[in-house]
Amino acid sequence: MSTDVKTSDVRKAFWKRLDDVRAGLLAADGERPVPMSPHADPDENAIWFITARGSAADRAAHSGGEASFHVADSKANVFANVFGKIDISDDSKKLDEIWSAVAGAWFENGRDDESVRLVKMTPHDAEVWAGDGGASFLYEIARANVKGGTPDVGEHARVTF
Amino acid sequence: MSTDVKTSDVRKAFWKRLDDVRAGLLAADGERPVPMSPHADPDENAIWFITARGSAADRAAHSGGEASFHVADSKANVFANVFGKIDISDDSKKLDEIWSAVAGAWFENGRDDESVRLVKMTPHDAEVWAGDGGASFLYEIARANVKGGTPDVGEHARVTF
Repeated sequence: MSTDVKTSDVRKAFWKRLDDVRAGLLAADGERPVPMSPHADPDENAIWFITARGSAADRAAHSGGEASFHVADSKANVFANVFGKIDISDDSKKLDEIWSAVAGAWFENGRDDESVRLVKMTPHDAEVWAGDGGASFLYEIARANVKGGTPDVGEHARVTF
Repeated sequence: MSTDVKTSDVRKAFWKRLDDVRAGLLAADGERPVPMSPHADPDENAIWFITARGSAADRAAHSGGEASFHVADSKANVFANVFGKIDISDDSKKLDEIWSAVAGAWFENGRDDESVRLVKMTPHDAEVWAGDGGASFLYEIARANVKGGTPDVGEHARVTF
C-alpha cells in the first residue's frame, strides 16, 4: 500500500521536474542516443519531441518501436531512465501547442515547414530519481544503491504509466 | 587533416565541460544506469567515481568490464555517450585528491571508511556534443542530425582517447 502511494508521488514529481529539463538523450531502437528536448504532457501520458524529417528520431518513430529517454539534469534535480513506444504524430493542434520560437529558428519555413516532424513517446515505465535540491542528493542515491533502500533525500522509484 | 584537428578540439572541450557536470548516468555491464558524480582527470585519461562497497558500480568495476557514462547537462552545455572500461582502484593518493566534503557526508567514518570504493573509468571512445551556451544549441544538433553535417554552434564529434 505505502509502495503505491510513493510510486504515485514519484510519478507526479517526474512530470513536474520534466518541465524544467531542457534536454535528455533519446535512444531509439537501433539508433544511437542523441540530445533531444522533451515536452512533458502528463494529461496525455506523453513526452513530445519536435524533430525534422530524416533525423534518427524520425526514422525510429516511423517504425513505431521502443525507445528510451535518459535524463540526467542536476539543475532540474531529476535523473530518469524512461522506457516507451515512439510514433510519428500528425496532431497539428498539439504541434501548435508545443511549438516555440526556439524550434522555429531552424526550420526555414517555421511551423509549416514540411520537414517538421512531431514525435510522441508514450512511456510505459521508468526509473526515476527526483531530488529536492539539496547538495547531498547524489550521495543519498549512492547510499540507497548500497543499502538496497531508498534515498532519505528526494524520491526514487520505478514507476509505471 | 581538419577532421583530426576538430576531434582534438572536441576532446579538449569534453574534458573541460566534464568538470562542470555534477552527475551523469553510469551504465555498467548488466547493471541498470544509475546517477553518479564524475571527477574528470584528463592527465590520466580517466573519469573517477567514488562509490561504496556493494553498489552497482562497485560490482561492475570488480569484473573489470565495459561501461558507458551518459551526460545530458544543458547547464554545463555538454551531452555525451562515453564508452570505456571500469576497474576498482586502490590508489589512495588519487582518492585523497578527489575526496570532497560532500562525499564524506555519507560515509560514517569519512575518507577512511572501509566501505569507500574508488572506481576508475578509462574511456576509449565517445560521442560528444559541446555547446557554447547559445540557446540554439539543441536545434543545431537536430539540424546536424538531419543534414548529416555538424552543428554550426558548438562542437560535435566521435572522439577516441
